[in-house]
Amino acid sequence: GIMFNDITALLLRPGVFKDAVDMFVERYRGMGIAAVAGIEARGFIFGPAIALAIGAKFIPLRKPGKLPGEVISETYTLEYGTDCLEMHVGAVEPGDRVVVVDDLVATGGTLSAAIKLLERAAADVVECACLIGLPKFKDFYKLDGKPVYILVESRK
Amino acid sequence: GIMFNDITALLLRPGVFKDAVDMFVERYRGMGIAAVAGIEARGFIFGPAIALAIGAKFIPLRKPGKLPGEVISETYTLEYGTDCLEMHVGAVEPGDRVVVVDDLVATGGTLSAAIKLLERAAADVVECACLIGLPKFKDFYKLDGKPVYILVESRK
Repeated sequence: GIMFNDITALLLRPGVFKDAVDMFVERYRGMGIAAVAGIEARGFIFGPAIALAIGAKFIPLRKPGKLPGEVISETYTLEYGTDCLEMHVGAVEPGDRVVVVDDLVATGGTLSAAIKLLERAAADVVECACLIGLPKFKDFYKLDGKPVYILVESRK
Repeated sequence: GIMFNDITALLLRPGVFKDAVDMFVERYRGMGIAAVAGIEARGFIFGPAIALAIGAKFIPLRKPGKLPGEVISETYTLEYGTDCLEMHVGAVEPGDRVVVVDDLVATGGTLSAAIKLLERAAADVVECACLIGLPKFKDFYKLDGKPVYILVESRK
């Protein structure tokens, strides 16, 4: 029942951090997930721990110019201007079942770009998983046809 | 015996990724480590998994303007210009034994800034841990008086 304004407070409580990761791991274990894709930078904090626990690979989705190899890019619109996510060519195999991880979801614009990027590489995006989200993401809300799973509802 | 040009290739092999994390965990378990501090962004990929496994908190050290709370900052010199790391005030308690994690170490400038930042908050920095490093970091090399532990020597 502890509320966090941002995820850094959660990270300072090892037991709570572990519980959060364990809840994702319970959800995705045994589902044939080949890869966890994490969105820079806070998706890197949860994604790799989940990937390790379920034996999946970890795919970083990064801001432009950060990945050293050949990439595919997806530009998306924000409230003010645009942003872009990049993924290494070959990170995902066609048909790979993938979970996309970020710390929080508000408009869903970044997650939507991540889904598009993965689908262009022929991945099968199973779900988006976020620690914190607006209440609308509870239950049956879908983003680009994909479920969004959130652990905690945002208060704003 | 597999060589990686960058850590993203390692992340695509779940067994190798797990072996790397396990080697850090073996090293730091039982040493009374209170916190793992990870340097944005690739230190976020390894640091939290190590912290979870040894029951330590995770402290993100971020680029300027990324942390939502009150911060302390450490500016440092790069080959061209300067960069800066920030940490939340209160993330570390005086005397906390801390391991600093990043993916690779070349000049050591960023790690050195991380050490200074943590020591200004009265942390006891035990060691820096990097996946990849120049051969000079093997054995008894110290950075600001702190050992640097690397898993793999860089070829360049």
